[in-house]
Amino acid sequence: MSSDHSRVGHAHRSGAHDFDMPAWPDSVDVFDTTLRDGSQQEGLSLTVDDKLRVAEQLDHLGVAYIEGGWPGANPKDDEFFRRAPSELRLATSTLVAFGSTRRAGAKADADETLRKLVDADTSTVCIVAKSWDRHVIDALRTDLDEAVAMVADSVEFLRRRDKRVFLDAEHFFDGYRHNPQFALRVLRAAEESGAEALVLCDTNGGTLPHDIASIVLEVVDWAETQVGIHCHNDAGCAVANTLAAVGAGATHVQGCVNGYGERAGNTDLAAAIPDLTLKLSVRTIPPDRLERLTAVSHHIAELVNITPSPQQPYVGTSAFAHKGGLHASAVARRRDLYEHVSPDLVGNGMRVVVSEMAGRSTLAMKASELGLDLDGEVLGSVLDELKALEHEGYHFEVADGSLELLLRRATGWSPDFFEVESYRVITDHGTPTKSSGGDAPPVTTEATVKVHVGESRMVATAEGNGPVNALDAALRSAIGPHFRALAGIHLTDYRVRVLDTGLGTGAVTRVLVDTTDGERTWTTIGVSENIIEASWQALYDSVVLGLLQASER
Amino acid sequence: MSSDHSRVGHAHRSGAHDFDMPAWPDSVDVFDTTLRDGSQQEGLSLTVDDKLRVAEQLDHLGVAYIEGGWPGANPKDDEFFRRAPSELRLATSTLVAFGSTRRAGAKADADETLRKLVDADTSTVCIVAKSWDRHVIDALRTDLDEAVAMVADSVEFLRRRDKRVFLDAEHFFDGYRHNPQFALRVLRAAEESGAEALVLCDTNGGTLPHDIASIVLEVVDWAETQVGIHCHNDAGCAVANTLAAVGAGATHVQGCVNGYGERAGNTDLAAAIPDLTLKLSVRTIPPDRLERLTAVSHHIAELVNITPSPQQPYVGTSAFAHKGGLHASAVARRRDLYEHVSPDLVGNGMRVVVSEMAGRSTLAMKASELGLDLDGEVLGSVLDELKALEHEGYHFEVADGSLELLLRRATGWSPDFFEVESYRVITDHGTPTKSSGGDAPPVTTEATVKVHVGESRMVATAEGNGPVNALDAALRSAIGPHFRALAGIHLTDYRVRVLDTGLGTGAVTRVLVDTTDGERTWTTIGVSENIIEASWQALYDSVVLGLLQASER
Repeated sequence: MSSDHSRVGHAHRSGAHDFDMPAWPDSVDVFDTTLRDGSQQEGLSLTVDDKLRVAEQLDHLGVAYIEGGWPGANPKDDEFFRRAPSELRLATSTLVAFGSTRRAGAKADADETLRKLVDADTSTVCIVAKSWDRHVIDALRTDLDEAVAMVADSVEFLRRRDKRVFLDAEHFFDGYRHNPQFALRVLRAAEESGAEALVLCDTNGGTLPHDIASIVLEVVDWAETQVGIHCHNDAGCAVANTLAAVGAGATHVQGCVNGYGERAGNTDLAAAIPDLTLKLSVRTIPPDRLERLTAVSHHIAELVNITPSPQQPYVGTSAFAHKGGLHASAVARRRDLYEHVSPDLVGNGMRVVVSEMAGRSTLAMKASELGLDLDGEVLGSVLDELKALEHEGYHFEVADGSLELLLRRATGWSPDFFEVESYRVITDHGTPTKSSGGDAPPVTTEATVKVHVGESRMVATAEGNGPVNALDAALRSAIGPHFRALAGIHLTDYRVRVLDTGLGTGAVTRVLVDTTDGERTWTTIGVSENIIEASWQALYDSVVLGLLQASER
Repeated sequence: MSSDHSRVGHAHRSGAHDFDMPAWPDSVDVFDTTLRDGSQQEGLSLTVDDKLRVAEQLDHLGVAYIEGGWPGANPKDDEFFRRAPSELRLATSTLVAFGSTRRAGAKADADETLRKLVDADTSTVCIVAKSWDRHVIDALRTDLDEAVAMVADSVEFLRRRDKRVFLDAEHFFDGYRHNPQFALRVLRAAEESGAEALVLCDTNGGTLPHDIASIVLEVVDWAETQVGIHCHNDAGCAVANTLAAVGAGATHVQGCVNGYGERAGNTDLAAAIPDLTLKLSVRTIPPDRLERLTAVSHHIAELVNITPSPQQPYVGTSAFAHKGGLHASAVARRRDLYEHVSPDLVGNGMRVVVSEMAGRSTLAMKASELGLDLDGEVLGSVLDELKALEHEGYHFEVADGSLELLLRRATGWSPDFFEVESYRVITDHGTPTKSSGGDAPPVTTEATVKVHVGESRMVATAEGNGPVNALDAALRSAIGPHFRALAGIHLTDYRVRVLDTGLGTGAVTRVLVDTTDGERTWTTIGVSENIIEASWQALYDSVVLGLLQASER
């Protein structure tokens, strides 16, 4: 047993156990399963390249173990383990291959699953075994003795091939409640055959923290081996369940950075890691890596192509954002009174959000961040304008670039780089469409932009693979010769949100464009019933701000 | 004290208290604060009409209290309380107005905040008071005695005007850890002046469940009055913290359906309510209303216009979805082995997700749901096509309509309602744009569609307020005369997702269109580098499926 948990006060009452305040171990081993259990999430689909890049991020963060997939289950995972030895240089983490025990009635030596697991060529493997008797009988359709033998044979087989073995005891908590003897027999068989960690899985995700704590406490007391925990968030308690298990003596913690996974997801390690490290002094990843957490979380979200929740604890873009006027001014004075931890510790930052709820003081803070000096009267009128625009669907708290232009205009400035006379976009599709049938026939888009730069009138037409791309190309072609800085300014992201969606295609469209000049990145916004017009507005602001910054350098 | 919590086993060890297994009360009062604390969420902005409609939904769900806003804090909340008496018919819930105590150094009788609170004309009010000494000194800038007097005076003032009063003890847990005497003095002042509930707020959201439990237990022991709990999710534990507090004797539970709120949000009542009701037998909302939970959650998400997380426990679209091939077939056999609760209890449903990870059996289940009989070979080739299309960016698990067309085509069927020769969309913008400056000048979009219906060639042009709207109008104008059913088919939603966003505007765009014929609703998908083409594909599938269904009636 790897923690020195000790217990006192074992009074009993109406069948329920009393239990102590948690006794936190010095450290836990963090085991990320994004590439295996996490990829069961609806909407999540990773290429082998994606998987390799996610593994690099996890290594950069410094988790102890990275579960890479299930060799034999699909060609992608086979390819991943084939390419990993040459393409994946792990500095901190150990790669783990996942599999199941041998099939019922088979011999371990002749079992395909186990053979593929060995062939994956990792030092460490994790195998899953059923520990709920009803699953053995109803799903596996064998008897309990055979289920135990499957565990013993498989662990032994893998140990003889020098693998370190972790056992995922599937449905452990449900199983333990229904038939604790059988659930413990499964663990004992793994332990006696040489498994290194017994991972208790709340597979259906419905167990609550007090039950997790009392069952883990009993298992930790009973086991000779390290105990692990694997939770799902079906009751909204995955992180708390994980903490409860650690408080009861579990020292191997499974989950996924960002909480990916089937149904409600796995334990979000981006919350469990800082909870354990910062609040409970339990060592998780190397201490100097915690500040990488936000960047790694966002990078992985990009790789798996799932928009992260701004509300995500610790790493969300809103996690340390303050909106209310009262709070924002108080926060500025005494940050520690309004923040549960310092955002710097996890690589996040405090933000003051500007929106229609903002008071003057918030807006004044933002203006002075930009080096603008706005007096009270001007601030009041900017606030009115901002509220009116937000009423139309603009949203300046996510568009720092357009907010900056709004504030600068309030000082009397107006952009004079170029003036737009008109634009036109034509999309043409010549032959029949077979949608959903592949083979999309050629569709072409061209844009024409007419602008004035000083005394010159410029007309430019460009093709693009879509309207925004064509407009961007035409504008650059028209004004590019006058502004050399434009060559260093690029759109990096384009997002579309349809507002008032209940109204169908007549609804208002909000477009956000991210732009970079290599040093700074800014977001601009456009809002219109017409998606082309909304895109144009965001594009226009993006270019104007880029030229403004270049001119000030 | 409203719960009959009893304790045993008070052994002590190194300064930590032991505590019992939770003793669950019979019932709790559910208090929703979506319209007040929830609306502090970044990106969330409600009109007064929205607020009235959210309140109706909360009443329909049957929460005990609806906190409607802060009268006097902004014009919107004033209007809400002005309109509520005539426009809001609450059958179950009690409307609550929120405010603060009187200001430091002022008299309650002359205090503007308290006057507006009274004017809001609700039977019940909730006032916030500082219970962390450092906030009194550093943020409020007064002394502790005055802070206590502010509470006593304000509660007394409101009680004299026949208001029922709840006290939100702000930063209570941080305050109690730093200066328990002061924190309890604040509660005592409220209690002695007639407050009905003492709500302990974890305002910064960083407290963990074991600390919540032990502090609530001490307060419940000490207090004469009902104790409440108000948690934030900054440590990823808001739901578990709420359960821990209830297990320690709190019987008034604050939170927001869907967990809206500043930073990481408030307690998600859509998880806390079913956890308490289904797993702990604690009465929350009227028992026969629990099955409304999913519908109310989704309806409120629409009203606040924030895309709900598919992963949300209990109510998320993925909460009971099974993706893995193995699981899906097992689930079909014995649902109770794979579901922590029955989805029907919360008005959600079990779904088998069709995606590239799906096995044949999943796809066969889906086909037979549609009444299609596909043999093994056909299933195999559909699976291959599906995988190839998903590789391009299609995503059939969210587009049941396009999936149905894909499966029908596999049976040899092909749509012969009309054939598209070409389409063209022109967007024209004649005068200079002042983006971010309001006053968008006129932009026009027209679409031309050329189609064949039987022997007739139809050419139609229509204007629209955007390209999708124009294309939809032109297609309807061209084929409408031939298909009367089309008049009953409407687009209801339109969503755009830019994939591979790292690549900028050259990225692939995925468009989803929701359509209804009044009885059934279906979703179709289009994917292309060109947003117009992607929209057209989704539109085409939407119309074809609508005509197909009408023809089969």
